[in-house]
Amino acid sequence: MIGGVDGHDAEQVKAAIEKAQANTAQPTLICCKTTIGFGSPNKEGTESCHGAPLGDDEIVATREKLGWSHGAFEIPDDIYAGWDGKEKGSKAESAWNDAFAAYETAYPELAAEFKRRVNGELPADFSDKADAIIADLQANPQNIASRKASQNALNAFGPLLPELLGGSADLAGSNLTIWEGSKGVEANDASGNYIYYGVREFGMSAMMNGIVLHGGFKAYGATFLMFMEYARNAVRMAALMKQPAIFVYTHDSIGLGEDGPTHQPVEQVVALRATPNLDNWRPCDQVESAVSWKSAIERTDGPTTLIFTRQGLAQQERTAQQVADIAKGGYVLKDCEGTPELILIGTGSEVQLTVEAAEKLTEQGKAVRVVSMPSTDVFDRQSADYRESVLPPSVVKRVAVEALSKDSWYKYVGFNGAIVGMDTFGESAPAGDLFKHFNITTDAVVEAALSL
Amino acid sequence: MIGGVDGHDAEQVKAAIEKAQANTAQPTLICCKTTIGFGSPNKEGTESCHGAPLGDDEIVATREKLGWSHGAFEIPDDIYAGWDGKEKGSKAESAWNDAFAAYETAYPELAAEFKRRVNGELPADFSDKADAIIADLQANPQNIASRKASQNALNAFGPLLPELLGGSADLAGSNLTIWEGSKGVEANDASGNYIYYGVREFGMSAMMNGIVLHGGFKAYGATFLMFMEYARNAVRMAALMKQPAIFVYTHDSIGLGEDGPTHQPVEQVVALRATPNLDNWRPCDQVESAVSWKSAIERTDGPTTLIFTRQGLAQQERTAQQVADIAKGGYVLKDCEGTPELILIGTGSEVQLTVEAAEKLTEQGKAVRVVSMPSTDVFDRQSADYRESVLPPSVVKRVAVEALSKDSWYKYVGFNGAIVGMDTFGESAPAGDLFKHFNITTDAVVEAALSL
Repeated sequence: MIGGVDGHDAEQVKAAIEKAQANTAQPTLICCKTTIGFGSPNKEGTESCHGAPLGDDEIVATREKLGWSHGAFEIPDDIYAGWDGKEKGSKAESAWNDAFAAYETAYPELAAEFKRRVNGELPADFSDKADAIIADLQANPQNIASRKASQNALNAFGPLLPELLGGSADLAGSNLTIWEGSKGVEANDASGNYIYYGVREFGMSAMMNGIVLHGGFKAYGATFLMFMEYARNAVRMAALMKQPAIFVYTHDSIGLGEDGPTHQPVEQVVALRATPNLDNWRPCDQVESAVSWKSAIERTDGPTTLIFTRQGLAQQERTAQQVADIAKGGYVLKDCEGTPELILIGTGSEVQLTVEAAEKLTEQGKAVRVVSMPSTDVFDRQSADYRESVLPPSVVKRVAVEALSKDSWYKYVGFNGAIVGMDTFGESAPAGDLFKHFNITTDAVVEAALSL
Repeated sequence: MIGGVDGHDAEQVKAAIEKAQANTAQPTLICCKTTIGFGSPNKEGTESCHGAPLGDDEIVATREKLGWSHGAFEIPDDIYAGWDGKEKGSKAESAWNDAFAAYETAYPELAAEFKRRVNGELPADFSDKADAIIADLQANPQNIASRKASQNALNAFGPLLPELLGGSADLAGSNLTIWEGSKGVEANDASGNYIYYGVREFGMSAMMNGIVLHGGFKAYGATFLMFMEYARNAVRMAALMKQPAIFVYTHDSIGLGEDGPTHQPVEQVVALRATPNLDNWRPCDQVESAVSWKSAIERTDGPTTLIFTRQGLAQQERTAQQVADIAKGGYVLKDCEGTPELILIGTGSEVQLTVEAAEKLTEQGKAVRVVSMPSTDVFDRQSADYRESVLPPSVVKRVAVEALSKDSWYKYVGFNGAIVGMDTFGESAPAGDLFKHFNITTDAVVEAALSL
């Protein structure tokens, strides 16, 4: 810590910075004493300099007190020259370009790989290989938690992506974000690809933004969905800056179980979906989980959240076309012959409820379609033709099912539909009991559908 | 700070607490060293004791190591007696009751006032007096910012409510939460009714929860709406605990102006509305602002957010019935003869846009109704009859207007309506330019209505 610096004395500030630079073993905190509105004869030292312009008269008085005789936006030549970094910058750029050209000659493959990563380009074969992995998952069904499916996806995609830089805010063991190729980044060994961020949700998310802005890495970081709240400002900054950080949120609903109401997300996903530029995925099985990872990895113009369950999920059957359509955010998972009279829409852990409800309704002679909607954000970007092929405007009897606040779903069910979701919260019990308490069950979906 | 305490040694912990209690001039931090899972022979000191039960075998081994020979849930008599506070508590309660009975005899009015405040009851005449104040505001129109209207409401209601305990997280001057009767709570003078919380949004909100749980006060605290994000967990706790804290959020949309995108709330109100038990108000003028304060003050079973503008707002004309209906969360502000063919729904600063658009549409021969909806939460609690009288199911051409994320409004406009709101964010400009950029204007409302 370097204290007692007069922040209005350029020489003192310079000396402090040079002293800090000389300490290469530790970070340094420089504390400067400053006066707000320095130089304003009537306002300095008061809060009126903070939130409002000084005003014309006070600007004149301040210029006089500071001995500044130049016009507005007039930069004296000596000051311009002192700050003009064009020549220095040009030399530094040339030196770098020369060095890199030499490197490229000596190590053409490494140089190409460096350029690929810095430019944020994926390996040319990534998409095809990922699709093969996804097809394989569809062919080899497993009923597992989507957090486990996420780890499996990392194990499959990780070897293809040396630019992956993972982490968790002290929940690696629960988030399942460590894969077989993970190696910790240590103080004395920066060759790793996994950062143990500590219990610092905001710090992790802000650092991920910095890493992604720097380039060269695909940064993912995890915590419980509920603890996203601690990092909201950094997640929003990623969306404002359109930076493709990947936020992994596990333990995604009342399904997380015994941790109680403070740990049960209800309104959080509604907020994430309402955030512009942010893609949010809540997949229903290992196949959708892998597709959501692929989508997040391939995204270049904004951040993605991947929202996974703690509890096990049934794997759904799909044709190759259905597997391909997952990437569109929403698709027909089960269908009837002819035009459906009812559409059930589910996400994540509730898709299985809609499938079971559809079976019961079909037994009762109803023509039912099931739509899986892992990402409303991505679905909304599809062509009107595609969206209407999934949700035909003529079919107005629709039930959306999600064990979260209902507010995301009115958009898709309209006035003639229903939503099986949550209007209340604050109950503590094992997951199964909570689903019953909040009436998010197969029978509730059937009942809601029949009531339309 | 008292350090080096063995947290497994009851005598050391007791001594540390007594030492801390003896220091009446400062808060004390007691640091104890403990071992996670203490006593578990195979798991203590490991993270496996944190998130999962020990398991039957390890429980047996732990009992053995700790020398605990009693059965599960069996409390030995001497331990029961040591912790049995019934007699001590009964005596303390009797002593208090006797003291209070004596106080009641000596000071009947003060005792009644104390009981009123501790029981969370308002003065018997509060509601009538508040209604008279509100009627007066309607009769004396002013075009002012709703944050200013909020301050006026505090000046009017404050003298009726000695239990009001205000505060702001270092933004008192911008939030306008100091009223004529405000007096700071100081280290040496606790007689005040206003807490300068400092730049501590979370701390403020958590302290408000504690104050409300204690009882005897109506606690309100303010910050910018955007900075609510820093306090989300405490706001949610108020809703989980059903405690009537009053959160005041000013600078409520792109209307806040030059502070830029990081300060412009877009998705925040969607998250607040999606939070169960939380009432949210976004009033359109000084009358709705005063009603929102009255509603927050009268609420006993949960928290309220009051969301106010930085910029000036036009006052709306209303009949006495319309003024009374504001408290229902949504009401008909302007109407046509007969059944409307179009309903425009606005909140807060956008109500004036709907009024202007309705005038233009009426000139074009349309039968238009304007609904002001300052609180969707409160409106949704009204009877179906009332709700349908405001929003008749037969009128499906509806336009909702809010300079925020659209996701709250699909519920009210259905498939045949439109929303004038925001799908993007991240622009920096004066407020007027931003409303034009995001196309939230009278013309945009007219266009949306005509497109239906």
